[in-house]
Amino acid sequence: MEKVKISNNVYIPMPMTILGAKVNGKDNFMAVGWICRINANPPMLAMGIGTHHHTLKGVLENKEFSVNFPGENILKQTDFVGVVSGDKTDKSNVFNTFYGTLNNAPLIKECGLNLACSVVESIKLPSNTLIIGEIKEAFCKSELVKSNTVLFDDMKAFFLTMPDNNYWSFGHKLGKAWSIGKELQTK
Amino acid sequence: MEKVKISNNVYIPMPMTILGAKVNGKDNFMAVGWICRINANPPMLAMGIGTHHHTLKGVLENKEFSVNFPGENILKQTDFVGVVSGDKTDKSNVFNTFYGTLNNAPLIKECGLNLACSVVESIKLPSNTLIIGEIKEAFCKSELVKSNTVLFDDMKAFFLTMPDNNYWSFGHKLGKAWSIGKELQTK
Repeated sequence: MEKVKISNNVYIPMPMTILGAKVNGKDNFMAVGWICRINANPPMLAMGIGTHHHTLKGVLENKEFSVNFPGENILKQTDFVGVVSGDKTDKSNVFNTFYGTLNNAPLIKECGLNLACSVVESIKLPSNTLIIGEIKEAFCKSELVKSNTVLFDDMKAFFLTMPDNNYWSFGHKLGKAWSIGKELQTK
Repeated sequence: MEKVKISNNVYIPMPMTILGAKVNGKDNFMAVGWICRINANPPMLAMGIGTHHHTLKGVLENKEFSVNFPGENILKQTDFVGVVSGDKTDKSNVFNTFYGTLNNAPLIKECGLNLACSVVESIKLPSNTLIIGEIKEAFCKSELVKSNTVLFDDMKAFFLTMPDNNYWSFGHKLGKAWSIGKELQTK
């Protein structure tokens, strides 16, 4: 099987989220896929946000933000907040919101899972800004959490691939992690 | 629909990758899900690695590493390098390797996509170490790349959810990104 060298600008599959922040006192939202957990305890995540984005202004100013996980039922709304800028379009009414203890982290009612985060550090990269955040509070639709596990499949969370620009559903279960490889251990 | 407050230690769905590095001159591999792109140009990624991990030693020492995307066909091998430590078990022969120009970034032949990366920065977090890397070279199985797009679905890349510890397949296409939300723009 032949390997070919390709452009180093390779995207990797992204769990779709919606970043929320207060910008000039108004709720703003943008679709974010460049996000992952980075620290176990306390729970932290990182995301790389294009430095020109309107939502980033609010994140940096208030040092608070939300990360919301949409389901397929609001796929179009998620895409919408990814294609229009809050600089030109008021996106404060796209979703219904609620708040935890962080006043500058608007949480989206329609999303199955909501994380309210504080900024630990921001690092200016060449074209993006890396935001390191601590997850201070998490909220979940009651029917989507079981034994402290979020049921992302029942939530119908979805993924993005680029540059083909496709959204993908959660697939089917393939096996148990940290388990199915153990049979190779004795070989 | 009721929202409940849950533990803030919420995992988010993870695209499964295999981190490769040279540790004490020997190839070592570990399963990594806490990884995402963070900068557009030059292409950079970040990953949060538990600071105790054996593979991390090699990443920090050589300032080079690989990120490899497995398909379902090597699900068990991927899980295996996630459950045993290179400190106790020699994992250098689990996969066949090849190299680009980075001598300390062992690339896995069996994986559809391989990224050879250099360390830009490492940041010590409370329990993990954040590695910021630049993607210097990318290699792909020739049949899995089309118009510079990696066909992650044909590759049968997969995802991990925790703490339920399940692997999930790529699902089906749901729609076009940066497109299907535009119809909301006129409303």
